[in-house]
Amino acid sequence: MVVVIMAGGSGTRFWPVSRETLPKQFLPVCSSHPLIYDTYRRVAPLVGDENIFLVINQKHRSLVDQIFRGHRIRIIEEPERRNTAPCIGLVSLWVDKEFGDQPVAVLPSDHYIAQEGTFQKALLAGLSFAQQGGIVMLGAAPTYPETGYGYIERGEKTSSSSELPIYEAKRFVEKPSIEKARFYMTSQNFFWNTGIFVFKPKVMLSEIGLHLPELAGGLSKIADAIGSNRYRSVLEEVYSSLSPISIDYGVMERMSKKIYFIPGEYGWSDVGSWSALFRIREAEKDSCGNLVQGNAILLDTENSFVYSKNGRLIGILGLKDTLIVDTEDVLLISNLQRSEELKQFPGLLEKRGWKQSV
Amino acid sequence: MVVVIMAGGSGTRFWPVSRETLPKQFLPVCSSHPLIYDTYRRVAPLVGDENIFLVINQKHRSLVDQIFRGHRIRIIEEPERRNTAPCIGLVSLWVDKEFGDQPVAVLPSDHYIAQEGTFQKALLAGLSFAQQGGIVMLGAAPTYPETGYGYIERGEKTSSSSELPIYEAKRFVEKPSIEKARFYMTSQNFFWNTGIFVFKPKVMLSEIGLHLPELAGGLSKIADAIGSNRYRSVLEEVYSSLSPISIDYGVMERMSKKIYFIPGEYGWSDVGSWSALFRIREAEKDSCGNLVQGNAILLDTENSFVYSKNGRLIGILGLKDTLIVDTEDVLLISNLQRSEELKQFPGLLEKRGWKQSV
Repeated sequence: MVVVIMAGGSGTRFWPVSRETLPKQFLPVCSSHPLIYDTYRRVAPLVGDENIFLVINQKHRSLVDQIFRGHRIRIIEEPERRNTAPCIGLVSLWVDKEFGDQPVAVLPSDHYIAQEGTFQKALLAGLSFAQQGGIVMLGAAPTYPETGYGYIERGEKTSSSSELPIYEAKRFVEKPSIEKARFYMTSQNFFWNTGIFVFKPKVMLSEIGLHLPELAGGLSKIADAIGSNRYRSVLEEVYSSLSPISIDYGVMERMSKKIYFIPGEYGWSDVGSWSALFRIREAEKDSCGNLVQGNAILLDTENSFVYSKNGRLIGILGLKDTLIVDTEDVLLISNLQRSEELKQFPGLLEKRGWKQSV
Repeated sequence: MVVVIMAGGSGTRFWPVSRETLPKQFLPVCSSHPLIYDTYRRVAPLVGDENIFLVINQKHRSLVDQIFRGHRIRIIEEPERRNTAPCIGLVSLWVDKEFGDQPVAVLPSDHYIAQEGTFQKALLAGLSFAQQGGIVMLGAAPTYPETGYGYIERGEKTSSSSELPIYEAKRFVEKPSIEKARFYMTSQNFFWNTGIFVFKPKVMLSEIGLHLPELAGGLSKIADAIGSNRYRSVLEEVYSSLSPISIDYGVMERMSKKIYFIPGEYGWSDVGSWSALFRIREAEKDSCGNLVQGNAILLDTENSFVYSKNGRLIGILGLKDTLIVDTEDVLLISNLQRSEELKQFPGLLEKRGWKQSV
């Protein structure tokens, strides 16, 4: 069994704490460890370090070496960001080369999972089921009508021998309207697509061959170079020519084979925004629903989130649903409910010639 | 003619920019000069420097010397803050001693006046009318239903020879309800009490004798010491024993003589809060009604006020009616409409042992 942790994201929705040089997965957002380390720690009891791959952007290599000092995990570098399909193709090549056609579990590096035991059992069941050649996803039972997630509709139950029920995925729905999200939640037939899934490398490579011929061509060049001293330059050349495409859109939604999923109450979140984090850290809120990390005095304020990276005093009066992020060089104040939109800032600032720092 | 500028206030409603050691009147709030200098500049064309007194707290002496370097104005130091009645009593003693019983115009140091010509004419008319022994105030025609100001109700018109109409003050009303403030505004019989007034020193001292015997006793001790080397110690002893009381409450509302006022459209504001300042600086707002002083990027934000004292980048998304004040050691975020309540902070922080700095 092999586990792959994908850490190539840019985390722009967590601006200004998350930066190009230090994106969200490398920050201690949900615990005192970086998110990527929380993710590693969650799967480490299932497999040995040598069966764990991290896929990272090459510019974060020294950061990753620092976080995983003393660990013998394998690291795959991507020369540039090309979304998840090229990343999973590359991973499939490497796993196939190193381990043969063994099931691989792929996990984003920057998610949160409250129910670790439930999650680990589901992942093991998925790895076992994927031996037969199917693709298995983890589907989280929705706990509120989230419009920012993709949903999986439940199909037939399989006759798998697994302890956990495994279902066919009938249909994928991307980011629904709030009305639909409310319906999905009550119907009990819809589950959040966690982006966590299990497959055998040859199955994935063959599906990429069917649906993404450009990527398949590139991967075959890389495959020829693996193990040779041409590898790095071939990888860079191929990546620079690839179109960015997500595995969901490029492969999963067009699969020639059935896709299965294991539903569960994982306490899962993609920690995709400040408001998602605010939701996760419910237990730390004060009696007015405020989450305060820093030296702040709040008067008559509710449902607000203060995140300060320095010791400055913050005085707050009469606010509601407000996000305040105080860093050395940037101060951010936003409607907390609209924190998804913060991803606009880094690009906007770049256009205005603002130089990022960490 | 003598003009007295009172600069003993603490400016707590302008926290965190205004501090104990650097209150509002010493800050460049409405122009590039400190408010107290704007106030001086507004009366300087009417009288010579040697006829202008500043009443300040002694701890601000070096600050004042710096601001008025090269000017030959007179400075009266108060050892501690005791509200306006003791201050005006002390001023009356000094003016009477230096100039005899000449009319004195008293002005708070931290107000804003847009219509300087109108204001100067009214002040001259008041000084001339006060020669006859009356007390004359400036009453500003309300431009919106402010609940934080005191109002003067218009009585009979005098038969003064002044070019400007002068009225008896029929009644004073302190901070009205919003309903009453709306009525006052439309009735055209009510005017804002600007706190600017003119009187002869002996008239004021005699009224203090009638209504504030404790203060009168203290003033008589100070009067005996003026010019002697006991002055400073007597002043300190007397001040430490005085109760703080405002001239409005202690004298004006109980006057044995008639009080008069000169109504006018002065474009006056007491600049008493961040929201008052926001109102004054209308012309500087962007098309969404935002007033931005600093390096800020505002997305989908309206009627908000950003005041930054440092160069930090401020990102703002989806806010409304919000005040953001960014200083070196304190960050403040408040509902702009409730900025009057910010005066709570300095006391609250003092209780918590926070050490102010500037």
